Amino acid sequence: MMEEFCAPRRLLLGPGPSTVHPRVLQAMSTSLIGHLDPSFLNVMNDVQARLRHLFATVNRFTIAVSGTGSAGMEAAVVNIVEPGDAVIVGVNGVFGTRLAAIVERCGGKAIRIEVPWGQIIEPTMIEERLRRSGPVKAVALVHAETSTGAWQPIEPMSAVCRAHDALLIVDAVTSLGGLPVEVDQWGIDVCYSATQKCLSCPPGLAPLTLNERALSVVQRRRVPCQSWYFDISLIADYWTEHNRAYHHTAPISMLYALREALRIIAEEGLPARFARHHLNSRALMAGLTALGLDPLPPVDSRLPTLLCVTVPASIDEGAVRAQLLERFGIEIGGGLGQLKGKVWRIGLMGESSTEANVLTLLNALEEIGIQSGWVSTPGMALQAAAYAYSVGR
Amino acid sequence: MMEEFCAPRRLLLGPGPSTVHPRVLQAMSTSLIGHLDPSFLNVMNDVQARLRHLFATVNRFTIAVSGTGSAGMEAAVVNIVEPGDAVIVGVNGVFGTRLAAIVERCGGKAIRIEVPWGQIIEPTMIEERLRRSGPVKAVALVHAETSTGAWQPIEPMSAVCRAHDALLIVDAVTSLGGLPVEVDQWGIDVCYSATQKCLSCPPGLAPLTLNERALSVVQRRRVPCQSWYFDISLIADYWTEHNRAYHHTAPISMLYALREALRIIAEEGLPARFARHHLNSRALMAGLTALGLDPLPPVDSRLPTLLCVTVPASIDEGAVRAQLLERFGIEIGGGLGQLKGKVWRIGLMGESSTEANVLTLLNALEEIGIQSGWVSTPGMALQAAAYAYSVGR
Repeated sequence: MMEEFCAPRRLLLGPGPSTVHPRVLQAMSTSLIGHLDPSFLNVMNDVQARLRHLFATVNRFTIAVSGTGSAGMEAAVVNIVEPGDAVIVGVNGVFGTRLAAIVERCGGKAIRIEVPWGQIIEPTMIEERLRRSGPVKAVALVHAETSTGAWQPIEPMSAVCRAHDALLIVDAVTSLGGLPVEVDQWGIDVCYSATQKCLSCPPGLAPLTLNERALSVVQRRRVPCQSWYFDISLIADYWTEHNRAYHHTAPISMLYALREALRIIAEEGLPARFARHHLNSRALMAGLTALGLDPLPPVDSRLPTLLCVTVPASIDEGAVRAQLLERFGIEIGGGLGQLKGKVWRIGLMGESSTEANVLTLLNALEEIGIQSGWVSTPGMALQAAAYAYSVGR
Repeated sequence: MMEEFCAPRRLLLGPGPSTVHPRVLQAMSTSLIGHLDPSFLNVMNDVQARLRHLFATVNRFTIAVSGTGSAGMEAAVVNIVEPGDAVIVGVNGVFGTRLAAIVERCGGKAIRIEVPWGQIIEPTMIEERLRRSGPVKAVALVHAETSTGAWQPIEPMSAVCRAHDALLIVDAVTSLGGLPVEVDQWGIDVCYSATQKCLSCPPGLAPLTLNERALSVVQRRRVPCQSWYFDISLIADYWTEHNRAYHHTAPISMLYALREALRIIAEEGLPARFARHHLNSRALMAGLTALGLDPLPPVDSRLPTLLCVTVPASIDEGAVRAQLLERFGIEIGGGLGQLKGKVWRIGLMGESSTEANVLTLLNALEEIGIQSGWVSTPGMALQAAAYAYSVGR
């Protein structure tokens, strides 16, 4: 017989999941009701309304896809891309790479604009490619590259996309709820995210929004969407009020959780939330820099939600992460793909973005560093963080 | 500002979700740990071991897909079916229809064997089609048709499939955990289910198992799986011990819940569990028959987990369901597709399959029936159920 599962105590400062508020855990454990129960349909309405606020959009098609963030990515792409369609994809990390792979699995032609990991894509690169290429169905960009910590500007991309009649698809997995994502103002046509990052909700849902321009592209498809599960023309029938046709059974408990997480976000208010993420990331980066760890992205392109620092070859990065986890119960992330063994990825997302967490992590890193010899003077990192806090407030 | 969500009290006797045990709700609300945390990888190992037991298989590839039951269906089909492949699909309800639709979205050719809804597919029909058709990649059947309550025999299908080198794909969404699903003994190559039916876990995961024969078909694909999210050649890298490569973030809380649900199932034991489902369904059917409601499927093909009865035209079926929900807090299901307005679908699945629930539902139906005039004598349904219990034990 299996024993009851007892979770170890963890401070979640990796690339996700982030800390989940006890209120969200409690909401998730609410007794189930049917997925077509009038009371549950109200839960869906509430979630849609709050997601619109978060995405800063009036898009009627604003839902939570029944899957994790990658399901949101797949839903965004498979509904738009048909065989033969050309899609320009900004590739500067794992998630841009994944976007291009999904475009190709739809039979689309992925035109990759590649820059070194950690860098961002310049609007001129997109413009130049759009001008050189034949018709392009969409341009897909990752707002917050979870694998590199790079913060991709989105607003400058919209005009050039519209000028070439290409849709703008944006991955906001590690940004939504932690920094501004202005779907309507920036002219984003398709935007998706995930719950386990800056929304501080368990993984299992992917917020997704499409504007009318994108929906009309979906409606004019020559062939049906290759995915039945992610076909938004079917999913819309369930999420649209006064319709509510059965498509698949919604993950009810996850929607309870998301509703409560969105309620907590509304209570804090977006400007205060964004400022909190900004301040804590500045303090943590000051401390990490004092420890001799340099951020991977250039100074103007560093995400406040996910900090990616290069680990010097003199530090055994895997051993440090193992010590953090085993001795201190702190999870941070290692590198993915070509950055494996070379970087740390530290998430300060949602409930995880607190002053206490910043200080606790820096102190633990400093202690490990002193014992391992790559830190000489105790307290430098905490001092730098304290200074950043005093300046930032 | 949104209020806290307060769920109404519901007795879940519809086609799913079923009642979730408080222990499962509590497990689901456990604090999150990372999806690559060694402790979480143990949770995955436990889930895999218990799912193998439930599927009665030694298949190493036995996992939970990160989506609801329909995601399991899509994962099963998209990994096997390539453009141009012929697949025989038994179509006797909504879910067979859906299987055929997904085959076609893969570019496959769905050869539908259609029988009236509520009936089952005879092995001779499959054999005859296999003999007449050219090469057939797979035969897909729904073990438990949630839309009709029909119980499809699977065991007789395997030999004929193997003789024609076709894989056998089985939908066990409304059977797994409520009645025997003998993957290895019956020669099933691909089998999937859902958590919110007889496992009495919230919706959000789809158990899936493939044997070596099916995995070798996946390995020999000419083109990559059209879905990146459901590509089991990638997913396997995460679920395989000593590998655990990141694919997508697992829905951690859902896996906590599933682990606890599987633990409860192990405590009861499968034979006792199946006997419980059998007994309660007999009693409920006796009571429903006493109320003048006839089961849709023929006598030998009635599921113990989902009872589907024809509602006479003299009864306003929608009004009765509304009364059940509003006055008694009881959810039962209406008809889907061509059965809309014509049947009731009553689930007695997992924690919902209890004597108390059977008696409560019958009493409520009788009370509504007396007030509406379609029941004349009080107590007939309860009496019939009591007799069935006394005989059945």
